Amino acid sequence: MISVVILGAGNVATHLYKAFRKADTVEVKTWFNRDISKLSDYKKEVSITDDLSLLGEADVYIIAVTDRAIEGLTNKLTFKGNLVVHTSGSISMHTINKRHRRGVLYPIQSLSKNSDIDFSYVPLCLEAVTKEDLNILKNLANAVGSPFYKVNSDQRLTLHLVAVFVNNFTNQIYRLGHEIADAKQIEFDILKPLILETANKVQHISPYLAQTGPAKRNDKRTIEKHLQLLENTDYKEIYNLLTNSIQKTHGISSSTKARNKTIKK
Amino acid sequence: MISVVILGAGNVATHLYKAFRKADTVEVKTWFNRDISKLSDYKKEVSITDDLSLLGEADVYIIAVTDRAIEGLTNKLTFKGNLVVHTSGSISMHTINKRHRRGVLYPIQSLSKNSDIDFSYVPLCLEAVTKEDLNILKNLANAVGSPFYKVNSDQRLTLHLVAVFVNNFTNQIYRLGHEIADAKQIEFDILKPLILETANKVQHISPYLAQTGPAKRNDKRTIEKHLQLLENTDYKEIYNLLTNSIQKTHGISSSTKARNKTIKK
Repeated sequence: MISVVILGAGNVATHLYKAFRKADTVEVKTWFNRDISKLSDYKKEVSITDDLSLLGEADVYIIAVTDRAIEGLTNKLTFKGNLVVHTSGSISMHTINKRHRRGVLYPIQSLSKNSDIDFSYVPLCLEAVTKEDLNILKNLANAVGSPFYKVNSDQRLTLHLVAVFVNNFTNQIYRLGHEIADAKQIEFDILKPLILETANKVQHISPYLAQTGPAKRNDKRTIEKHLQLLENTDYKEIYNLLTNSIQKTHGISSSTKARNKTIKK
Repeated sequence: MISVVILGAGNVATHLYKAFRKADTVEVKTWFNRDISKLSDYKKEVSITDDLSLLGEADVYIIAVTDRAIEGLTNKLTFKGNLVVHTSGSISMHTINKRHRRGVLYPIQSLSKNSDIDFSYVPLCLEAVTKEDLNILKNLANAVGSPFYKVNSDQRLTLHLVAVFVNNFTNQIYRLGHEIADAKQIEFDILKPLILETANKVQHISPYLAQTGPAKRNDKRTIEKHLQLLENTDYKEIYNLLTNSIQKTHGISSSTKARNKTIKK
């Protein structure tokens, strides 16, 4: 049995709590939040507190709070030599006060508040100073059924960056698609299966091999038609930049790129 | 029973053929291709030909060839008054020779050669001149289980453009993610569940509501860290452009945008 204290009441804290509750080999000893009212839904099933001196003894203390609050919170934990981990993608493990055994448990997933999360689809990026502490984190990952990866702080920041690309930027591309469709009274629903298939495809083959479309096959006529259709200059700029990016990836000649740049202006 | 002649041997032609073969209410009378050897795998189950005078009589003639070949091919069809449709997203219905009853059946999906396609996930965008012809195309969509939408040529070109955004551009974003991860010896596998979840999320909520991340919450520290990490100027440019796009969508002040532009240079 691994005993855990959770600090924080955001999405990551809440989903971790729920996953630990379901796990046979994890016990949540205490759940802390500065504003205890945010934990009141759970007060019958777990010990909740807003007092850092009442956390109790546990194998792991998980700091799942906003990035800039991590350092201060670990400074306030007065005990010594316990395993304290944060859950951030972009904060160094060494931000945790050095009187603790330090570690990181960073879930790479979009953990929305109200959805039920299946942790077998939440890869956990683990970091710790010692093998023993890494093993505790691995056991925690196993307990909730998550795939896990040993990742150092530099790699983790890169992962966080790549997550911004494949999650936030991709989602913004969907949003632009939604706007462009809406302006022509086209239901966004028509595009949903394609969105899903595009994501499904790269589960099995590389995005390089999965690429298709006018940029990849250097279909200048279609590219021209699209650019004429896009009245908004922001959309045009994104169209050009990503078309050029695809063509660079697939080794298509720079004459096309030069031409696109002219159109762009 | 709807009788069909298919012209072409590419991915769309082949997947339509397979779907029609499985459908109870569709009969493929003839499958034409200029290079008949590309159809030889199917010669035992369907009448194949490379001779346009041997197509025979059918309810619908489906021209599933490359965009620039559509017009010439419909000119060569010497019969009159039959329903002839193409499958292109970016070609006007009126490109089809006017001695035919004209129409379009445009599948919005990424139809890779070797994968099995479930047509219930392939929305068909239909266009025809008369209600009767539209009904024939609707029946064809029903026969293969596809959702269908009545879409005019202008909307269809817009859909084709939006498909480039949500499929090709999204896939390129995945590719960039793959490159950035690779450079730090990070397995791309770690990111696959997030890619899938991002696509899944917008099946139920709008991309506007689904957005999260540093750009959306205007987390300048993280944005700065990411930009420092991105050495490649192409990546930086895409990061800046999409960060600014997210911030514009979500009404975040232009001071940030100006700042990002400075970093970009």
